Order: sequence, then structure tokens, then C-alpha cells
Amino acid sequence: MFFNKKELAYNAIPDKPDPIMAKHLQEIIGGQFGEMSVAMQYLFQGWNTRGNEKYKDLLMDTGTEELGHIEMIATMVARLLEDAPVTEQEKGASHPVIGAIMGGQDPKDVLVQGLNPQHAIVSGLGAMPVSSVGVPWNAGYIVASGNLLADMRANLNAESQGRLQVARLYSMTEDKGVKDMLSFLLARDTMHQNQWIAAIKDLEEKEGGVVCPTTVPPEWEATEHSHTLYNHSEGEDSAALDWVKGIAPDGHPFNYAQGKAFGEKPILSPAPPSLHNTLPGQDMK
Amino acid sequence: MFFNKKELAYNAIPDKPDPIMAKHLQEIIGGQFGEMSVAMQYLFQGWNTRGNEKYKDLLMDTGTEELGHIEMIATMVARLLEDAPVTEQEKGASHPVIGAIMGGQDPKDVLVQGLNPQHAIVSGLGAMPVSSVGVPWNAGYIVASGNLLADMRANLNAESQGRLQVARLYSMTEDKGVKDMLSFLLARDTMHQNQWIAAIKDLEEKEGGVVCPTTVPPEWEATEHSHTLYNHSEGEDSAALDWVKGIAPDGHPFNYAQGKAFGEKPILSPAPPSLHNTLPGQDMK
Amino acid sequence: MFFNKKELAYNAIPDKPDPIMAKHLQEIIGGQFGEMSVAMQYLFQGWNTRGNEKYKDLLMDTGTEELGHIEMIATMVARLLEDAPVTEQEKGASHPVIGAIMGGQDPKDVLVQGLNPQHAIVSGLGAMPVSSVGVPWNAGYIVASGNLLADMRANLNAESQGRLQVARLYSMTEDKGVKDMLSFLLARDTMHQNQWIAAIKDLEEKEGGVVCPTTVPPEWEATEHSHTLYNHSEGEDSAALDWVKGIAPDGHPFNYAQGKAFGEKPILSPAPPSLHNTLPGQDMK
Amino acid sequence: MFFNKKELAYNAIPDKPDPIMAKHLQEIIGGQFGEMSVAMQYLFQGWNTRGNEKYKDLLMDTGTEELGHIEMIATMVARLLEDAPVTEQEKGASHPVIGAIMGGQDPKDVLVQGLNPQHAIVSGLGAMPVSSVGVPWNAGYIVASGNLLADMRANLNAESQGRLQVARLYSMTEDKGVKDMLSFLLARDTMHQNQWIAAIKDLEEKEGGVVCPTTVPPEWEATEHSHTLYNHSEGEDSAALDWVKGIAPDGHPFNYAQGKAFGEKPILSPAPPSLHNTLPGQDMK
Amino acid sequence: MFFNKKELAYNAIPDKPDPIMAKHLQEIIGGQFGEMSVAMQYLFQGWNTRGNEKYKDLLMDTGTEELGHIEMIATMVARLLEDAPVTEQEKGASHPVIGAIMGGQDPKDVLVQGLNPQHAIVSGLGAMPVSSVGVPWNAGYIVASGNLLADMRANLNAESQGRLQVARLYSMTEDKGVKDMLSFLLARDTMHQNQWIAAIKDLEEKEGGVVCPTTVPPEWEATEHSHTLYNHSEGEDSAALDWVKGIAPDGHPFNYAQGKAFGEKPILSPAPPSLHNTLPGQDMK
Amino acid sequence: MFFNKKELAYNAIPDKPDPIMAKHLQEIIGGQFGEMSVAMQYLFQGWNTRGNEKYKDLLMDTGTEELGHIEMIATMVARLLEDAPVTEQEKGASHPVIGAIMGGQDPKDVLVQGLNPQHAIVSGLGAMPVSSVGVPWNAGYIVASGNLLADMRANLNAESQGRLQVARLYSMTEDKGVKDMLSFLLARDTMHQNQWIAAIKDLEEKEGGVVCPTTVPPEWEATEHSHTLYNHSEGEDSAALDWVKGIAPDGHPFNYAQGKAFGEKPILSPAPPSLHNTLPGQDMK
Repeated sequence: MFFNKKELAYNAIPDKPDPIMAKHLQEIIGGQFGEMSVAMQYLFQGWNTRGNEKYKDLLMDTGTEELGHIEMIATMVARLLEDAPVTEQEKGASHPVIGAIMGGQDPKDVLVQGLNPQHAIVSGLGAMPVSSVGVPWNAGYIVASGNLLADMRANLNAESQGRLQVARLYSMTEDKGVKDMLSFLLARDTMHQNQWIAAIKDLEEKEGGVVCPTTVPPEWEATEHSHTLYNHSEGEDSAALDWVKGIAPDGHPFNYAQGKAFGEKPILSPAPPSLHNTLPGQDMK
Repeated sequence: MFFNKKELAYNAIPDKPDPIMAKHLQEIIGGQFGEMSVAMQYLFQGWNTRGNEKYKDLLMDTGTEELGHIEMIATMVARLLEDAPVTEQEKGASHPVIGAIMGGQDPKDVLVQGLNPQHAIVSGLGAMPVSSVGVPWNAGYIVASGNLLADMRANLNAESQGRLQVARLYSMTEDKGVKDMLSFLLARDTMHQNQWIAAIKDLEEKEGGVVCPTTVPPEWEATEHSHTLYNHSEGEDSAALDWVKGIAPDGHPFNYAQGKAFGEKPILSPAPPSLHNTLPGQDMK
Repeated sequence: MFFNKKELAYNAIPDKPDPIMAKHLQEIIGGQFGEMSVAMQYLFQGWNTRGNEKYKDLLMDTGTEELGHIEMIATMVARLLEDAPVTEQEKGASHPVIGAIMGGQDPKDVLVQGLNPQHAIVSGLGAMPVSSVGVPWNAGYIVASGNLLADMRANLNAESQGRLQVARLYSMTEDKGVKDMLSFLLARDTMHQNQWIAAIKDLEEKEGGVVCPTTVPPEWEATEHSHTLYNHSEGEDSAALDWVKGIAPDGHPFNYAQGKAFGEKPILSPAPPSLHNTLPGQDMK
Repeated sequence: MFFNKKELAYNAIPDKPDPIMAKHLQEIIGGQFGEMSVAMQYLFQGWNTRGNEKYKDLLMDTGTEELGHIEMIATMVARLLEDAPVTEQEKGASHPVIGAIMGGQDPKDVLVQGLNPQHAIVSGLGAMPVSSVGVPWNAGYIVASGNLLADMRANLNAESQGRLQVARLYSMTEDKGVKDMLSFLLARDTMHQNQWIAAIKDLEEKEGGVVCPTTVPPEWEATEHSHTLYNHSEGEDSAALDWVKGIAPDGHPFNYAQGKAFGEKPILSPAPPSLHNTLPGQDMK
Repeated sequence: MFFNKKELAYNAIPDKPDPIMAKHLQEIIGGQFGEMSVAMQYLFQGWNTRGNEKYKDLLMDTGTEELGHIEMIATMVARLLEDAPVTEQEKGASHPVIGAIMGGQDPKDVLVQGLNPQHAIVSGLGAMPVSSVGVPWNAGYIVASGNLLADMRANLNAESQGRLQVARLYSMTEDKGVKDMLSFLLARDTMHQNQWIAAIKDLEEKEGGVVCPTTVPPEWEATEHSHTLYNHSEGEDSAALDWVKGIAPDGHPFNYAQGKAFGEKPILSPAPPSLHNTLPGQDMK
Repeated sequence: MFFNKKELAYNAIPDKPDPIMAKHLQEIIGGQFGEMSVAMQYLFQGWNTRGNEKYKDLLMDTGTEELGHIEMIATMVARLLEDAPVTEQEKGASHPVIGAIMGGQDPKDVLVQGLNPQHAIVSGLGAMPVSSVGVPWNAGYIVASGNLLADMRANLNAESQGRLQVARLYSMTEDKGVKDMLSFLLARDTMHQNQWIAAIKDLEEKEGGVVCPTTVPPEWEATEHSHTLYNHSEGEDSAALDWVKGIAPDGHPFNYAQGKAFGEKPILSPAPPSLHNTLPGQDMK
């Protein structure tokens, strides 16, 4: 069960309102790699962990922390929206010169075009569980598979993509308050990448392998296809990668070969008449 | 541009039809980590690669190979569906004894309940671009960020989750033909994990860091928060993980601390009247 | 079955085209609380009503009316789009002065940025079944539960959110024709709120209770938890709400208590090996 | 920011595994009115509250509590899945008699048909953020509008639909452990309905009106349409509802009238040629 | 604006309840080509028609008719659900013999596995706006482009797919009442195919071309690529189609050629450092 | 299986970057009728074809070609994004005069408002599998039914809508490089429309009918409803269409009649108490 503390995880005070930046920050709330994704991903992984209490606790620690990050960014978004020129009276008088130049278009109208209109119409200047283009967050973004090695790799990916997005947003504003909050997210994503890398290394060592899941018996696998890079795109640039000529991470040498078919050309049987499919022969006069 | 060869990447010939297994195999066509995801993810990453031709070629090789895996599994699904008892006449005569026991329920009706009904009604015994529960594939599953280290981690995750699902499906059937096809997928996912692990190591070495993106200047980051595991879930099991007491992958020591707030309790300003939000003070009589 | 009359429910004639307002009005066609939602919600509720013919008729009356509101707003959107500067020749000559100032950017190009591009590319200046950010309407927005009290509460919510959005849109335009149409929607939403409030009161009285569903036997319920506000967020501001100190709407006194766990710390059993989950003990060296 | 306690909000211990019930309980985790919806809805409402600290605290209390309900039900689902017959070896020997009767169909295969296959293939016997039919949760289900009266009505609806679903699930199982957990949810939904009803009454009184938003000036509204039930569905059963003959909740008398058009038949202007729409006149020879 | 008549478009009275068939019929309510799709598609096309009043009227006639088909099928679904064994007491006593054979599994439990569980938990035995696998209808299924020729082709496709699905459902039941309703849908889909084919022919004749849109000036088009079938899949079976050797529908002869690249191998410029993309050269030691 | 050639299907070299056009071109990558749709639609149709090898080959030829079109447009989008002013330093110095006029708004900020922000934050100046408003592509857009006539009609629709969108985009830019690429797409869509029209004619002739599926026995159909246009929208404009007075494409005369109900007014039975639906009689005092 959970408890909330009203103080925020970190400062979320912009220098001044900026509704365009509010729209952009939605990406790290409700985008594919936003805080809703990492919070829910880590929590479901924690809830589904069967008997590895240290990792369960780690997942619950981090997932719970991420809930606080949603809160922190949502607060920032709400503040950045505070002077959004959403209504006619708030836009003030049109400037006649530039208005004339722009064919009667009020410059404030121009500003309003860049907003997420739902920030005015739907949420009343509040943050929303959506991305920077307004697509609602959905649970198809996350995974909790029951295999910790697989899931730690999912987590490392999420923190890598997430920190990349934060770094890009950092350059997209001059607002010191926004940058201050982003500096905290950069740091936490550094920590979380470090911890998932360490966890991956730990699990690979304990399980004695790097190919996930490590528990597949070799006889299940067509091992003659397990270490060959098949060339399916014209040109052999990929063969020139240094590591392709060496030993694969699981200890076997890499091979390189031209892609080819190992199966037959398939011909499917006709469907029963009750399905009203096109029957064979109908393409031959 | 692309060319197709009619022969399949590998054998896709089941011992006998099995519409339930057909439904289950849909997961690795159109599920979150199915072949549509890896094909499209690698291809978009390849198309967006700016000037790293070896990696672009590797991505195009692998993405193009995965297109052939969709084809191979789709063919298997089409064959597994061939005797699905979708219509009344195909079910044959009801067995009177068991029918009576089951309150008039025909046992073949029972079988029909486990099918994906769209395999009959919509696709006419063909594969569909959907998961094992029938949810259509969507592009929110994939990522192509322009940062190869981040994306190779996404790819390693996809192949880890994908191979895990194939291993599970392997135990869910006794059909030797299905197992044969799955043995090929296990092998290719082994190769692909190996290659993405090697690529990640290569990129980390060349970029001189493991925290992605490696190009963030340290002054952007609140580094006092970059190596501490904050305890947000009661109990300190996570602190007992061996690696938490050591050096983080980026070379700095890990810390452990009780989670706490570094920000203030926020109070938001009221919205302008034109938004018809509840105004402050209305909760006080 | 249904019949259509070509005349609109109300006037839908803007003073002049305004493609930005067209984009904004899409919210009340295909957004979460747009007319598609209320039309489909009331109609499905009506079709599923079992034996309460007066309420079925009320639902059919209102759902059918809402179909006409989609039509009316769609017509308004089509007219507001009529002069959208979608093509180069329609934009006319660039203004050299402001163009130079803006780095070669044509002011009309600026205008075009605020449009929903699908209004040009996809619908050819027609309304679409999407929200103000272009997300397609989906049936996950609506409910028809078979319980009239629950559903009337859903309906009251829909009309409250809907009227709020219309009120906000009213302030976002100076166009008298648009305001005229919105004044009709404000009025109909007033009526619909009134009718659902009256219906809720009627059903509560007849069913003899306010807690929905009213038919749950008391012995099914852990009644010791039925009237207590558990404090899960630091601070006791909520306890200071006047009504928290009084009698709950169902006649029992409210309580206030610190949130606490009534269950145990769960430990899950390991999964069978066939699932290739991480087995317990793997986090302990 | 948030903290987690490992103990569950309430007991989540089934008498025995039941993978079908596990599938059904997913509805109240990741369905339209599941715990993910109420948790996220209340939290976003709380984060967006501007200056009504008592209500903000109430929303944070309740939203945070709901996070613990996701956890509790997820734990129940994980336990109900523990003996799911997902693989061939776990199904054991086929029974020859019934197998023959059922055309070679193993009865355990029949059982497996009712499972959510993703519980085996994707989550490894863990709960997922999806509904009872496997559709992922999405944020389009929730609302946080900035208007407390509108949002409290959304909340009352969510708790009414949610409690209705819990009551239905209660009858769908004989498992005493599952029923015990559901008895707690019934109780909490009772409390939450009570609190939102009380809050709605409080806000209506303070704002001096029941038609939301209460701040719309009367001159914005076509008040001649604000109290009339228009008959759009043949028959006048709705007119016979007792309350239709009385005074509406906002104090004005209800009217009843035949539905009719208050607007004109619209004729739209042709689109510019650059859009390649069909031009008028093309339907006339 | 719309009016509703309580009588159904056609009979919707099944011989007896059949919850599996109820689940299957959902496909033609809320599936990709269900009645919600055709109703909304034709109505939006009608509302967006600019000045072709005969076609607008045709679209409004047919779209309005389809609204009545949703109603008719929804009523059928509600009736087919009437005896769904959703709760324990309704299933009656377990049969001891078969129960023992099936490992304690009650045969009625088996039946319940094929149901859409939301028909019990969510809709209370009512129809839902979802497909046969429970995926909610969404507006991404439909199109209204402003070009009548394009849209009539969309409509012909919708009626062809729709009638195909109805024909398949016809074979999936022995219920005379269900078959009776489906016979009406088969007939209406026959009519609608006829009318859209006739409309397509009419528009092609009036516009003087079959390639849509017919208004593209020839100088816009790289006409040397307008009539050649490029062979991109190994083997030349397609070249053996009789019509490939003849004159194309627009009057020019078809050609056949091996697929080849007409563009260059692209090399993209590096992204600016502020995006933290991988910079070129990093794949070369 | 598939192979890729690095050269593009056609030129994809814009005269100069234009991030707004990049956003618009996303429609024909990941929109409802973009290249992802046609590629996947044709490939799934090809994979599911049962025994009509000429048509299977045609579908594989065309589907494989369309994969190359995704690649070509993705490359164009990546190049159009190259100078997107995504960060503060890239925008350069603000122009003081216009900045003052626009209330401190930097003109480059104005430009940035029209971008798809995910092109900077998520993809790092790369193409994405989304539409022009940023909605991810999903597989609910496509169909592969097993009936070639139905599917060829789907394909003709897709190419008609697709070419219409390309024609509109052609007018939305003055960039000669973009227009050059679009001229190729116009041509290929001309070819594909020609081929699907010819295929439809071929299949109709061989199957001996135009009403799809052609295999429905006449006794299944309520043929008295198969050729009548029912008037459901006030006014008889549709009756004035010339072809309505003639012979339908399937050889029977069209009729015209006022829409009417052929079914009864339905009354549904009450639900069992275990569902907690509202019971009948509760609307009567």
C-alpha cells in the first residue's frame, strides 16, 4: 500500500509560464517512455516477482519513486500553463500593424496555435496523462514478464530513452526553473541506468549466461542458426563491424553468411466452402 | 527497396491443425514483442541512421530478416487453422451422452470457445496482425530514437522478451512441426541478443561511457542524486543486494538513503474565470 | 430504427471561416465527452434496458437528439474550414518585410501550422470523428452497464464535462455564429443535467438507497471499512472538510483514520520451470 | 512523493488457484473502471487542483489508497494463476474415455481455452495492466478537468460502476478468499460513493447551483431550450415519468415537446480545386 | 436531426439464448466492418458533402438505416445473453461423473470460458460497442474524404467485407431466429453493394476517368511508372494473369518489368549535437 | 523471405529542409491509408491466399514494393527535418522589433509551434510510424479476409484514398524535390488502381457475380429487401439519381420505398438478480 507526502520530489517552479514547453513536457509524463511508463512497469514487475525479495524491493523502491516524478512534472506543467492565452479577452488588443501584415491574423492567435488545445478545453490548465502530441498513455507500452533478466533489460532501455528525451528537452528551453527540474531527472536516470546495468550483470552471472532466458535446453534450439549474421540488405558493411569478426558474448564465434531460405515455398490448402473464401483455380481462365 | 523470395525463412509445417495454438502464436506476430515490432523497429532505426553505415546495414539486415519471420509464422498460423470447427456442419453429429451431461452443450461447441473468433469471421482462416488476445498491433510499441546506444538497448530488450515468449510457446505444444519452427526462432533470437550485446559494448567503449546519452555535460545534471538508491518501499531488502554496496557501472560508488522530498509543497494559482474551474476558497464555508 | 431530417437541430452558421476554431470544435464531436460519446452511450443504454420502458424511452429520446448534435457541429466545422490556407496558391504572395524578419517564413505558413493537417489531407475540409488533437474517438469512452442508477451517474458526468468544455470554447471565439450554436448546446446540456439529476433522485428513492448497486446484501460487505476516510496523504486537510464530520449520505456517520495495512506482506510461490521465470534464490549469492 | 509499505491494503489469499477468475479480476485492475482508472483519475485531479487544499488532500488520500488496491488485486491474480495448466507436461495424462468422446480433445486442453493466453506467454503468471478481455488500460478512460463539481461527478460514476462490477464478480466465484477481498472492495466503494456524494452536495451548495459549471452567465445560454425534454423517439413513455411533470433540480419547471429542427437545411460551398474533392454538379447529368 | 421509431428494422428474436453466438455477433456491431463503422462512415460522408445533394441524400438515407441495424443486432445480442451461466448459483449442481473426469472442473465452468466476460461484468447482459474479441470500436476504421469516388469505393469495400462476415456467421449457428435476422442483413448488403457499384460507375462516367482523383493534371505524374507491374517477389506468376497482358482500365497498355531502384543510396547528414544522437564515425575504430 | 537493396525506389531529395512538410508527409507513412497500411495489407493478403498463386504473386509483388515506399518517404522526412529549430541555440538571436510586437514572442518560437514535437524529442529528426497528427499506426486499419474480391475492393479503396492524399500534399509545397517524389507516388497509385480494377473485373467474371461473396445461396437471403433503396432521410433527392431508376449491377431492377420497420418493438426480459441490474418496475411509482 502507498502513502503520499505533499512535498515534491524536487523543485518544479518555472521562471515564467510557457504553454509550449508545457506541451513538450507532456512527453515525459504520458509518452511511451514517460514517468507513467516507468512507474507502472516497475510496480507491476515488483508485484509479480516470485520469491526474489531483494529485487522485488528494488523494483518497489524505484517504481514508487517514479510515481513522485509524475507528480513533480505534472505540477510543473500546471504552472507553465498559467498564462496560456486561451480566450479572446486574455489576448488583449490586436496589434494593428502586424495584424495587417498577417492578413488580419492576431499575433496572439498565432501563439495559441502551438498549444495543446486540450490543455484549455479539457483539463483547464492542468497536466494530462498524454504525450507531447496528445495521444493518451496506454499500458501496451510496458512489460512485466516474470523473468528478471528480460525485465531489467526493458528497464535499462526505458531509462536510456527517457534520459535521452530529458536531455533534448533541456536544450529546448532557456527557463532556469525548468532546467533545474530536468537536472534532477537527468541525475535520477543516471542512477537508474547504473542500477539496472548492475542488476543485469548480477543476474547474468548468477544464471550463468547472457542469452535470455538462460534456462532453454540446447536441444530445443536450432543452434546452427544461433551465431550467424545473415546478410539481408545489399552490401556487406555490417560484416566490417569489428566485433562481427570475433567471439559472441555467449562464447561462440560469430559467423557471417548471405541470407537464404531454409524452408519451402508454401502452398496452402483451400478453406471450406462455409467460409466463402475465394476458391483455388479462380485465377485461371 | 525490397524483394521477396517465395521460399520461407524456415519450415512452417505443423503435424496437424490446432486452432488454439494458432491463436497463441499470434502473440509472436502481432503482440508487443512480436515480429511486426522487431521488423518495424529495426527498419525505422536503419532508415533514421545518420552516417553510421555499418550499423545502418546491420539494422537493415536484421529488420529485413524479421519481415521474413512474420511471413513464416503467418504461414504456420494459416495451416494450424485448417480444420477449425467453425461451422455447424463441420462439427458433425453431437455425441448424445456427453451432450446430455453437459446440458445439451455439444463438445465441439466447447472446442470452438477457445478459438479467436476473428480467425473464422474476419480472416477466413488466415493470420492476422494482432496479439494472442486479438488486440491489433500498434506502432506505439516501437522506438527509433536516433541514438544507437539507446536503440540497441531497446533491441536487446525486444529479443529477450521475444525469446522468452518463444520458449514458453515451445512448452505449450507437442506438435513437432511447430516445435521445429520455434527452434529456429530460439536460435535467431540467440544470435540477435548476441549481436545487440556486442553492439552495446562497442558503442559504450567508443563513446566512453555507459550512461546514455553519453553526451550530456556534467553541469547539466544534479549529480548529487546520480548514484543514490532512495528507499521508497518499506524495508531495506534492496540495500542487501551485493552490488548496491559497490561501484556503479559508471565508476562512482553507489549510495543508499531513505527517500525524501527535495522540493516544496506546491500551491497552484487559480485559473482565469474564463476556464470555469472551481475557484479557491470554495471548499471553505 | 431511425429517420433523418435535413434541417439541423439548430443554426450552425459562422460569421466567417476559422480553421483553428474548427480544430478546437472537434473536441465536442469526437473527444472523450463529445457528442459521439453521449449519443452512443445513451443509445446503448436504451437498447440494453430490460423492462423499464419509461427510462428506455428517455434514453432513446436523448441519444437520438445527440445524433443530431454531431450533425450540427460537423456542419459548423465544415464551414469554418472553408478558407483554410492549405495550398501554396491559396496563401497568395508572401509579405517581404515580415518574411525577411521571420527568416524567410511566410506569415501564411505560420497560420497553417495551427491547423489540424488532416482537415486538408484526409477529410478535404470536412469534420472528422476525432478530438481537438486528432485522436480518433473510441468506444472505450462509454458505458452501458444495465444498472440505471450507475448509468445515470455516468450520464450526469458526461453532461457536466461536456457543458464545461462548451463554456470554455465559448470564450475562445468572438464569432457570433459560433457563439450562437454554443448557446444552444449550453442550454441542452442544462436540460440534460437537470433530467439526469432528477432521474438519479427518482431511482435512489425507489431503490431505497444511494450506494450503487443498492441490491448488495450487507453480509457481502466488510462494513467496518464502509464509512472511514483513510488518510493516505500527509496532512489532515481533508479531515477539516465540514461534511467529513457529519453523517454520510447513506445514513451512517463518517469516520476518519490513518491509512494502514489490513493484509499481510505477500510472498508468491515460484512459477513452474516451463515458464522460464527467474527462480527464487537467484538474488542471493 | 510516494512511499510504499509491503503489507497489502487487505487480504489477497484465494482458497485455491483459478486462472479463469484471474482473467475475470483483470477487469477491476485494467478495465475502464478498474483501479488504475480511479488511482490515476484522483491523482491527476489532485495534482491539478488550484487552491482548494482540503479537496486536494481528499483526492490525494483516495488516489493513493487506490494505488494500493491495484497492488492487492494484482497479488490475488498472481496467486490465482499459480496452477494454470499452460504446458503439456503440466496437464498430465489425457483421460482416454472423455478424450475419445471429445474427438481426441484433452479435457485439460478445454480448460486452457478459457485462459487469457498472455497470462502464460507474456506475463509468466503475473497480473497485467489490461481488462478481462486483455485490452490494455489507456488514459482516455480518465478525466481531470479543473472543475471539482464536474470531476466529483466523474468520481461518483467511477465508484458506482466499479462497485457494480465487484458485486457481479462476487457472484461469479465460490472461493472464500476471493470473496473476502471483494468484501473489502465493496466497502471501500461504499465509502467512496458516500464521500463523493457529500462533496457534490457541498460544492453545489457553495456554488449556489446544480448545473455545472455554475459560472456560465445566463446571457450565454439559449435558455428557451434549457428545460424541455424533446421527444425524438416515437411514443411518449418518457413523458409519463413522474418527475418530468415537476420542477427541475435547478428550480425551473420541466417542459415536454415534440423534437423539431431549429436550424436550416445546410448547403455547403464547394472546396477549392486543390483538394480534389468531388465538385458540385457532378451528380447531375 | 434524427428521430427514432421503437419498432426494429427487422426481427431480432433468437430461438434460444446462446452467449457464444452473442459474442460472435459483436463483430458486426463494433468490429472493423460492423454497423457502427458503416453508419458513422456514411453519415460523416453525408455531412461533409459539398453541393451534390442527390449523393448527400443517398448517404444520409443509408447511414441512417445502418443506425437501425446497430439497434437490431444489439437487441439480438441482449436476448442471446439471457441465460448466460455467469454466476455460481445459475450454473446449478455440478455433474459428479464428468466433473471427476475433468479434474473437478464443472462442465458449466467450461461453457463459461467461451463467453466474453465483459458481457457479465461490464454490460450486465447487454450488447457492447466492441468486436468479437472485445476490442472497442474506434473511429480510425472509417473515412470521409470529400471525394465521392474514393468514398464510394470505401463503401463498396465495407459492404463486401460486411456481407462476407454475415455469410460466415450464418453458417456458425443453427438458430432459426438468428438466421432470419442475418438473411435480412445479407439482403441489405446486397442492395448497398449494388448501389455503391452503380454510384461508382456513375461518377467515373461523369468525371471521365477511373483513376481517382480524376482531377490530377498529367504533368504532375511520373507517367512512365503509371502502367508497369514491377516484379518484387521472385517468380513471374503475376505476369501470367490474363489481364496483365492487356489494356489497363484507364486505356493504356499494362507493362511488366523487374522491380528496380530509381533512386540513389541515401546518406543522411548528422543531427545537431543538441539532439544527442549518435554521431557519425562512432562505428569505426 | 525478404531482401533489401540500399538504393531507394525513387528520389527522395528535397530542395531544402521543411519540418512542417515533414510532419504532413507522416500521413502517407503512418496514417490510415499510408504506406504501412498498404504494405501490411497486401502482404497479409498474400500470405493468407489459398491456392491462387497468380494473385498471391501479385499481392506479394505489390506489398513488397510498398515496403520500399515507406523507406523512400521516411528518408524524405528525415531530410526535411534537418534544420528544424528545435533548440534555443539553433534559433539564433531574437529579432527585437517583431519580438516586441508579438509580446516577447520570438518568431522562431512561432515556427517551432507547427512542428511535431516528437520529431525532436522522441525520434531525433527521424521519421516515425505515425500519422500527420502523431497518432501511431495500428493494424486495425487493414484487412485480409481470405476472399479476393472483397480484398481487391479494399485495395482499390486504399489506393484511391492514398492517391487523393498525395495529390493534396502536392499542392501544399513548392519544393521541387518533394514534388518529384510525389509524382512517382501518383504514378504508382495510378498503376495500383488500374491493377485492382482489372483484378476485380476478372474475379467478378470468373465468379459470375458482382455481389460479394458470390457464393451465398439465394435461399439464405431475404431477397425482397435486396434491391430497394429505403428512404430514411427526409426528401427524395436520392430517388432522382438516374441509376436508381434503372437496373442494378447484379441484373435486378432497383426499387425505391419509404423506410419502415419490419420488426416488432422489443421488450427485453429482466436480468437475473446476481447481475444487480435495475429490475423492471422501478420506473413506476
